[in-house]
Parts: sequence; structure tokens; C-alpha cells
Amino acid sequence: MMVFKRLADLGGWIALGLFAGMAPVQAADVVTTKNIGLELANQIAMASVEACRKDGYQVSAVVVDRNGNLRSAMRDDLAARFTLQIAQEKANMVVMSGLKSGEFRKLRADIRPELNHIDGLIVMEGGVPITAAGLRIGAIGVSGAPGGDKDEVCAMKALESVQERLDFAE
Amino acid sequence: MMVFKRLADLGGWIALGLFAGMAPVQAADVVTTKNIGLELANQIAMASVEACRKDGYQVSAVVVDRNGNLRSAMRDDLAARFTLQIAQEKANMVVMSGLKSGEFRKLRADIRPELNHIDGLIVMEGGVPITAAGLRIGAIGVSGAPGGDKDEVCAMKALESVQERLDFAE
Amino acid sequence: MMVFKRLADLGGWIALGLFAGMAPVQAADVVTTKNIGLELANQIAMASVEACRKDGYQVSAVVVDRNGNLRSAMRDDLAARFTLQIAQEKANMVVMSGLKSGEFRKLRADIRPELNHIDGLIVMEGGVPITAAGLRIGAIGVSGAPGGDKDEVCAMKALESVQERLDFAE
Amino acid sequence: MMVFKRLADLGGWIALGLFAGMAPVQAADVVTTKNIGLELANQIAMASVEACRKDGYQVSAVVVDRNGNLRSAMRDDLAARFTLQIAQEKANMVVMSGLKSGEFRKLRADIRPELNHIDGLIVMEGGVPITAAGLRIGAIGVSGAPGGDKDEVCAMKALESVQERLDFAE
Amino acid sequence: MMVFKRLADLGGWIALGLFAGMAPVQAADVVTTKNIGLELANQIAMASVEACRKDGYQVSAVVVDRNGNLRSAMRDDLAARFTLQIAQEKANMVVMSGLKSGEFRKLRADIRPELNHIDGLIVMEGGVPITAAGLRIGAIGVSGAPGGDKDEVCAMKALESVQERLDFAE
Amino acid sequence: MMVFKRLADLGGWIALGLFAGMAPVQAADVVTTKNIGLELANQIAMASVEACRKDGYQVSAVVVDRNGNLRSAMRDDLAARFTLQIAQEKANMVVMSGLKSGEFRKLRADIRPELNHIDGLIVMEGGVPITAAGLRIGAIGVSGAPGGDKDEVCAMKALESVQERLDFAE
Amino acid sequence: MMVFKRLADLGGWIALGLFAGMAPVQAADVVTTKNIGLELANQIAMASVEACRKDGYQVSAVVVDRNGNLRSAMRDDLAARFTLQIAQEKANMVVMSGLKSGEFRKLRADIRPELNHIDGLIVMEGGVPITAAGLRIGAIGVSGAPGGDKDEVCAMKALESVQERLDFAE
Amino acid sequence: MMVFKRLADLGGWIALGLFAGMAPVQAADVVTTKNIGLELANQIAMASVEACRKDGYQVSAVVVDRNGNLRSAMRDDLAARFTLQIAQEKANMVVMSGLKSGEFRKLRADIRPELNHIDGLIVMEGGVPITAAGLRIGAIGVSGAPGGDKDEVCAMKALESVQERLDFAE
Repeated sequence: MMVFKRLADLGGWIALGLFAGMAPVQAADVVTTKNIGLELANQIAMASVEACRKDGYQVSAVVVDRNGNLRSAMRDDLAARFTLQIAQEKANMVVMSGLKSGEFRKLRADIRPELNHIDGLIVMEGGVPITAAGLRIGAIGVSGAPGGDKDEVCAMKALESVQERLDFAE
Repeated sequence: MMVFKRLADLGGWIALGLFAGMAPVQAADVVTTKNIGLELANQIAMASVEACRKDGYQVSAVVVDRNGNLRSAMRDDLAARFTLQIAQEKANMVVMSGLKSGEFRKLRADIRPELNHIDGLIVMEGGVPITAAGLRIGAIGVSGAPGGDKDEVCAMKALESVQERLDFAE
Repeated sequence: MMVFKRLADLGGWIALGLFAGMAPVQAADVVTTKNIGLELANQIAMASVEACRKDGYQVSAVVVDRNGNLRSAMRDDLAARFTLQIAQEKANMVVMSGLKSGEFRKLRADIRPELNHIDGLIVMEGGVPITAAGLRIGAIGVSGAPGGDKDEVCAMKALESVQERLDFAE
Repeated sequence: MMVFKRLADLGGWIALGLFAGMAPVQAADVVTTKNIGLELANQIAMASVEACRKDGYQVSAVVVDRNGNLRSAMRDDLAARFTLQIAQEKANMVVMSGLKSGEFRKLRADIRPELNHIDGLIVMEGGVPITAAGLRIGAIGVSGAPGGDKDEVCAMKALESVQERLDFAE
Repeated sequence: MMVFKRLADLGGWIALGLFAGMAPVQAADVVTTKNIGLELANQIAMASVEACRKDGYQVSAVVVDRNGNLRSAMRDDLAARFTLQIAQEKANMVVMSGLKSGEFRKLRADIRPELNHIDGLIVMEGGVPITAAGLRIGAIGVSGAPGGDKDEVCAMKALESVQERLDFAE
Repeated sequence: MMVFKRLADLGGWIALGLFAGMAPVQAADVVTTKNIGLELANQIAMASVEACRKDGYQVSAVVVDRNGNLRSAMRDDLAARFTLQIAQEKANMVVMSGLKSGEFRKLRADIRPELNHIDGLIVMEGGVPITAAGLRIGAIGVSGAPGGDKDEVCAMKALESVQERLDFAE
Repeated sequence: MMVFKRLADLGGWIALGLFAGMAPVQAADVVTTKNIGLELANQIAMASVEACRKDGYQVSAVVVDRNGNLRSAMRDDLAARFTLQIAQEKANMVVMSGLKSGEFRKLRADIRPELNHIDGLIVMEGGVPITAAGLRIGAIGVSGAPGGDKDEVCAMKALESVQERLDFAE
Repeated sequence: MMVFKRLADLGGWIALGLFAGMAPVQAADVVTTKNIGLELANQIAMASVEACRKDGYQVSAVVVDRNGNLRSAMRDDLAARFTLQIAQEKANMVVMSGLKSGEFRKLRADIRPELNHIDGLIVMEGGVPITAAGLRIGAIGVSGAPGGDKDEVCAMKALESVQERLDFAE
């Protein structure tokens, strides 16, 4: 089975494809991947919406699987329809980079204008990896709070609320 | 407040815009509309997915509000990514026609090819209106079961499961 | 100045480009065209909406100029957002064919599937030419009534209501 | 009924989703919203065009409802066709941010490049909220004057011309 | 681990979502899927091109993984650029239906017009599932031969040429 | 050098990819192709426009090279803007099929609906191959005359007018 | 008849919509506009290509009419296919601004990022107005030379070559 | 036959269209071009993927022909789906500029924002020309390594591995 780990060392060479750091040279004919299930995706999306509500914000939250395909999307009652696209593309940015979208934004300002042009990507804060048993199984993106940092807080709170479930997922 | 009702008589002249049958000639400066809330939308989407699972199918389910803007979208673990777009456009077809998308498909074969071309619409069975206290507040679309009739069954079961909540929604 | 007239004889060979029937072989360096003004466009769009309201329907009405560029668009309070695109593309179909979109639909069923694919066109009833002093200066498209025939009636009533203004436009 | 107010304090944390500041944590099953009616939308769009004409400019003016769906669009006789998209996306920027698009542009330069990439949004001056009885019921965007500040002036004059109507709208 | 099998019985109710027939009602938090590796994908794509060359045709061949994301695409020297999109969308049609695209086309003529409208799908013969050890791990689509039946023959020959590798893939 | 010829025998198996009938099984590392030059393309496009003017029609004419990339496009003074896309996609249909688009339309009604969906293609009469010294070097598409047969006549007249030039092109 | 002049004074307030500076407050029901004819458009496009060839560059040249609709497009033999879109959008930028696209780029750096996002526009040097008898009747855009300044030189030379024709056009 | 050479002198005026530097003023009716063959394209793409694997990265590699039409595309097992578009657009950037995409990026920062907006182009490092016997016959783009410089290294290694084949290609 093919596995990739989130590397600890981000110093100096963080970039697109980081997540591929430990891929083997010789690929197998069949690749086994682990992906987030629907119930867990829904749980994380709704917990993000609720965390933002507690902070007084109405947001959209979107969970994509590790291939960057949508799994769960929710738009709160007063969140503008545009927040759905933003949330989804923040989550995809995590799939692309292997990092929180906010971290990536800080590390790679040089290619931020270009990646914004790629279909399905936006380089904004508020996307966070979903990791289970050491494997990234998807990503959550949040949009609508007053500032991407606040979006990210909601996503992080949501992940904390399911931490045990993530630790023991299999 | 402006209200529209689902007409009982569909004989002979069913068409686009039917739902507008009782609109007043003089519009007000402010229009009050009632729309589905997020929790209810999530409930209906997930109940549709679960109803299909019981029948042995993996589907996507999408709830849109009465303006045809997405509220909740869920893709089951093995449902193809294409089912999301199909489910959403079935739900939008309900918003457009005021009818189940399957009913509309039967009644208006004459414009089925054209409406398939309009952004966000597809004329397939499996979209159902969500009605609360006599008002349409949104629509649910399901895609992925072997046949649009089976998709619709899942959507109908989901609505039945929240019928009381819909009856007393305010 | 280059002028084109709406030909009376439609028998047997009606088609794309009919409207070009009297164009000179040698084009001038500068082509003078007459186009609908904004106030007149607004008047026709709103009169279409109001005519449909009297019939009990909520519609969108779109006026394009004779180049097929949008001049005025209005969506009634309960008309679905999808009706805007439909109304605009019906009007464009008039620009393309020189005929009522419903007439064209009847005469050219052979290329109806293909024209539906062209950006900005849809082959549905409900688009009507706007003619001033014998010259086509634009087109109106209506969508949302229960049937394209009913959409067309609203457009025709609107044009009748400004007939004198059209006759004496200059 | 769910209500949101435009907050007075913009200091330091103005951002996406600001408008959601007072949303309740527990959403209702049915959300009641108030939206601009067509006649009022037309009035504001045309008044914007006329205000710009008085200043010597030809513009497009677009009114969207509070969901960011188009309600009324008008392009003046000599305004370039591109101004329609610009005007609409300025209005949508108001729906997204809850602020004048020019204010938002000044406050959030950090995410201006990204939001320009989102479908239907552009971060330019010239979009203004439409507020009735303390509730935002839509937005007006203007494009075509020599400078977004001049576009905004036309929109503001238009709103002033219907102020009483807005105050007493219900 | 979640597994789906290609069902033998196709009589009477073949449809979208068939492949989901054995999915469990209760989804797990983490879904394990098996996907085609790059070398195998390349092998199948090139073998399809070569099989068609032997028959005298120049084609494009595209392999997608089981999520419908592109893995390998090849356009032969004289194949028109349009064949790439066709080949890819045929392969995606397999992902959507779980069947050869030609089989699906025959069984579901009723929804063929609609599915042609969905992004990434086309209902044409020439797409074939790639199955390893009883699991579908991807799909191959071929376009450019004179007739979809001929495209399919090339794809089938390619799969035969790697049959042993598929049987023992893990 | 790789060469393909237009086959004489079209009986019974005409299809996509016909043009590839004589391609070698082993491709070379470098493929030499012959393509239409700009002056010749302009000549053919303008001659098509003029031929149609003589017949009383205003059209668009588009020449693409043998890769289906645009070389020359012209829209006559009163031709609707939509005719440009139609003319271009007719020409591309020739690149795809190796046949007159009208011939292909007759021979392959079975896949006409699907090919209309492919980006850049439309299955309408009025596209004609441009052949020089036995090699197809591009294609011309015409749109705007009352009927695709009339469009094709204009294209054919244009090709005749440059026949000698085509025969001796090198 | 409605006429607009290119203003001499560009000092300090150059902007979108400048060209509308002398539009009357009260619009007429019918607007008469003067537009470039096809032969003249072809002449200017080809002269631009030839001017660039003399300088050693292969370019695309596109002429649009004063509504920003394409009239003539030519791509030289070795010009990349991407230059066609660039040339067209430069020409449209002239339609939008009333200025040379290079002048506009210098004057309005503040909205350059946003206008690049509008469909059909790009803020690059190399677009030039086509003016006949004091009226702007279209625009020419050139792309492919090593630098927009060089593109503009080719366009200017082309216009000079038809200056007399422009002066006496009617 | 028309030939273009990569100029040695890049000093001071490097730009779009450089590659056209030696084009003749009078074009021929038929243009002969040399293009990369499929097997060679596959070889270069796969060698790029393998070179990156050796460095520990998972990437996509795309080879386009000299017209900027796709010839071969490969996505490694763990490379994000977004890397395919990026790799293709880097390769196209080479077709557009005649230079390594990274060189172009450095030389023409002034138009980098605009070219990012053109369909099919992105101004990022990692695209490299493929040159055979002194003629550019295509381009390779790589995406997914941690930094465009690393992507370029993989592409360069791939080209070196086929250098002899390129030198003797005909």
C-alpha cells in the first residue's frame, strides 16, 4: 500500500508536491488509497458551520476527499452563494499542497497569482487537511467569516471535535 | 407577503412558470420569501442518501433553496463525482418548473432538449419539491440509483421522514 | 446606408441568414445601422412583464439590440433565475434568424439540435423581432409563462403597446 | 424571522461575512428573507443611468437581489457591452461583503486578487447596498463612468431619489 | 474495506449507479479504494493506440482512474485534437455507469440526451472498464477509429494484452 | 514524411478517423505536416463571403488549418455574430471527420447528438475540406445563408476560384 | 443621430466610459451607429500582419466593430494559436476604453487586475482605435511581436496605410 | 519550407513572438511544419515522471506539439489532479514564447498577469522546449515537485535522456 506522510520539516523548500516526498520510484499496478467517508465529512462540515455560528458568522463549509472531489457541502442560511465556491477551492488548495491553505499562501507568495488561475484552486486562508491515523484523507474549507484566519479557526475547532474519531479511523 | 401555491390542476397546459399562476399584477417594493434552513436541508439530503443505501444504491443528494441556490450537497462513498451535478440540476429543474422533475419531463417533452442546454438545468427524473406549510421552500435532487424512478423514491422517503417537521415549519 | 427588410415570402426556403436577402454585393467601408434605444427597450421589457402578470404568469423579459447584445433585462419577483438566460437566448435567436423564434423553430426543425449548442442561442418560442419604420432594431424574448406560445403573447402585447412609438421612431 | 443589520463599526476586522455578525447559532427550518421587488429595482437602475447621463457618462446599471441573483439590468446606448458584466459583479461584491464594493476594496486589499477569481465577483468601486427599513434587500452596481468613484456617485444619487420609498417599503 | 463487484445480471434494470449495488448501508469513516497505477495506465493507453494502428486507424486513448480523474492520455500523430475529449468522456461514462459505454448506450437510450450534457460525460461506444482482481480500478476510452465499435475493439485488445498483469495486480 | 489521402471509397463504414486509414503502424519521432498558409486562407474565406453575397446572403466564413486551429475568420456586415462560431465549428467538423460536414452529417446520424457536445464541433452542412496536391491542408466553414446547402455552395465556389493555386501549391 | 468624439484632453481623469463624455441625457428611441465594413477590416488586419512581417515578426491581427463584435481575424503561419485571443481582447479593450489599449494600461493601473478578469478584455499594449471621419468605427488588436509596443507599431502602420480611405469613408 | 530557429541573443528585447524572428515576409500557400511523434512524446513525459520520482516527487508531465495541442499526458499515482492543467499550460507557455517558461517568466514580468488570463497559458517555471535537429517540435511541462525549478530539472533530465534521438530525428 502506498502511503504518504505529512513532513515535519517545512524549512526553505516548501512547495507544490511536497506531499509526494516519500513516494516510491517504482509505482505499483494498483494503488490503494484511503479516503474520508460521507458521515465523517458531514460531521466536520456541520461542526465548522456551528463553530462559526458561535463566533457570530454565517459560512459555507466544504469537505473534499483526498482526490479533490467534493464529498459534502453546506451553506448557512445567510452566507452568500459565492462562499461555496471559495470554501471548495480552499479545500482543494490543501489537496494540491498538502498544507493548510493559509500556510501555503505564506510560503509560496511567488506562485499565488498563477495558482489562483487553475480550475478549482484559490490561495486563501481557511482550508485545513483532514488526517486520520497519520494519513491525509481529505480537506475542509470554510468561507464567510470576517477573515480567513477566522474561517480557519472554525475548521480547526471542527476537527478537534472529531479528533478521537479521526485517531481511531481505519 | 407574496405567496404562491402549487396548483392542483395540471391538465393540458402544464408549463414553465406554472408556479407563478397566482402572482399579483402589481409587485410590491419588498418581496418576502420563505426558504429552507440548513439543518432541515441537511436532514433531507442525508435521509435521501440513507434511503438509497437501504435499496442498495450509492447516490448524491443535493438540496437547493427556492431560488435555486445550493444549500446542502452530499456524495456517498462510491457514487461517481458526476452524480453531484446531476442531482443539483434535477433539483434546479424543480425550482424552474414547480413540479417534480419527472412529472415535468413527461408533460413537456417538447422543450426537454432546450432546457437541458440551460445552465444549471437537466430534465431527468429524481427532483422533488420541498414544501412547508403549503409553500415551496426548496427542492431535493438525487442521482446514482439505477433509474430516475429509484432516485425519486429515495427523495420521497426522505421527505416523508421529515413530514411533521415540514408541516409545522414556520 | 445599408438596410435590410423583413421579407414577406417565407415559403419553402426560410433559413438562417434570410434577413440578409437584400444585402449588396459590394460592402461599404462604413456601415450605418439603426439600433433600439434604452428607454424604448425598457418600455418593451416592462410591458412584457406586465402583460404576463395580467395573464397570471411571472416571467423574465430581455431586450437585445440588433447585434444580439443585451440592452435591458428584467426578472419578475417569482420568476426562476433560469428564465433570464432563456429569455435572452430566445431574443438572440431572433437576431440570428430574422424571424420570431417560434416561427423559426417550426421551419427549421432540421438544425434545431445544433443551434441549441451555439453560445447565446436557444430554439424556443417566445422571441419576437422589434421593428421600427421597417427596420429591425432589436428583439424581445420572454420566458416563464406556461408555454412558449403564452410567452410570445406577452411579447406581442408589449410591442402593440408601443406600436405608434415604433412607427414614428427615427 | 432572521434579520441582519449593517454594523457601524468597521475598524480592524472588516471582512467577508461581516454581514452575518448577528446570525443566531440555531437556525430555523424556514428562513424568511426580504428582497427587492422588480419595479423598485428598475427604478434604481434607470435612475443610476440617468444620473450618469447628467454627468455626461453612458453606463450600465445592474440590480441584484439579496441572494446575488439578477433582477434588473440596463445598458445605455453607447455603453460598451463589457460594462454589463462589470456592473453585475460589483453588485454581487456587495452581496458578498455587505459593504459598498469600494469600501470593501479599500479594507481588504489582501484578498482582492483572489475574490476577482470567484465566479460573479469583481472587486471594483461602484457597487452599493440597497437597504429598506434597515434590511439589505439587494445591491446596485454601475460601470462605464470615468472612474469607479463616479460610478458610485450615480448609484448613490439613484438611491437618494428613492429614499422615501425605501424607508417605507414593507 | 469497501468493495464493489461488477454484477452479472444486467436484465431489465441496468442504470446509473448499478455499480453501487452491494454498498453497505452504514459507511465507514475511512473508505479504502484501489486505483490503477500510472505504468499500467500507460501500457493500456499505448496498447490501444497500437491496436488501432494495426487496423489502420489513428486514435486518442485516455485512461482515467476509478474516480474519473485522468491518469494517462495519448493522441496519435494524425488523430484530430477533438478525439482526446471524446476518449476521455467515454472513459468517464464507464466510471459513471460501471458498464462499457457502448452497453450503457444501448440500455439507457432514455437518458442519453441528458447525460451528454453533464460535464465530462459522453454516451458513445468505445469506453471499457479496467478490472483487476475483480475490482474496477479505472477505465479506458478510445476515439478516432471509423465507428465506436472499432474504438472498442482496440480497447479490448489492449486489455487482453495486459490480462495476466490485471489478474495478478494487487 | 507522413501523408494521408482522402479515400475514394466511402461505402458502408464511413466514420470518425477515416482519414487515418493509411497511417503507418510505427510512428516516426518527427511528423511532417503540410498546412494552409495565411494568404490562401484569406483568399478562400473572402471568396466564400463574396460568393454568398452574389446569391444574396450575408455570411461568416472561417478557415482552420489541418489541426483545427483558426487561421482566418471574416464576418460580413449584416451577418449575426453567432454565425462566426457556427462557421468555425463546421470547419472543425471537417478536420475531425475528413469529410464535408454535410456528408458526415448524412453518414453518421447515430453520433450526431454526441459530437455536437464536443468543444469546437457542430454537425451541420457547410464545411468543406481544403486539399492541395492531394493533401488536406485545412477546412473552410460558412454560415449565414438560408440553409447549409447554400453555405456549402459558397464554400465550393470559393475553392473552385483557387483551384489552380491549390493544384500547384507546394 | 448620436455621435461621440474622442476627447483631446486626457489629463487626470481618463477612465472607463470616457468616450461617452458627450452623450445626451435624453436617449432617442432609435440609435444610429456607424461601423467598420468587412473589406476595410480585412485590409487593416492584413496590413498589420504584413507590417509585422517586415519587422520580422509573425502575429495575429483581429479587427472588431465598435460594439466589440469580431469582424476579421487572421493568424500568421507561425504565430501561436494563443495570439488570436490576445489580439481580440486588446481590440475589445479599445472598445471598452475609447483609447489605445497601451494608453489605457498606463493611465489606469489601478483597475488593470480587475479588467483582465472581464470576459473578452485584456489590458495589454497593442490595441488601437479605428476612426473614420472623426467617429470610432472599430478597433484593431495585434499580438505576437516581441513586445506590445512592437505590436502597436504594426497596427499604426496598417492604419496609416488606409488613412485616406478612413478620411473619406462615409 | 518554413523554418524557425531559436535565436541565441536574448538581450533586452525578448518577448512574445521572438520565435518568429526569421519568418519571411511573403508566406507560401502551404506551410510545412515538423512536429513531435507520439512515441517520442510518451518517452519524454515518462522520463520526466521518473526523474521526479528519483528526486522524491510525484508529478504530472504533459507534452504538447508545436501548435500547442496535447500529445501525451501522464499523472503520477499521488500527484493532485490539478497538476495536469498546470503542466499543460506550462508547456503551452513554451509554445507561445519559444522559451523555457521559467526564462520567459523572468524576462517578461510586465505581462505575466495578463498572460495568466489567456486560455491554456500559465506563466510558471517548469516548461521546456523540445528541439530536434535545430527545430522546435513541441514542449514538455512538469508540475508537482516542490518548486518550479525542481519541475524544470525533471524535464531537462528527460530531454537529456533522449538527446541522441532528438539529434537524429528527421
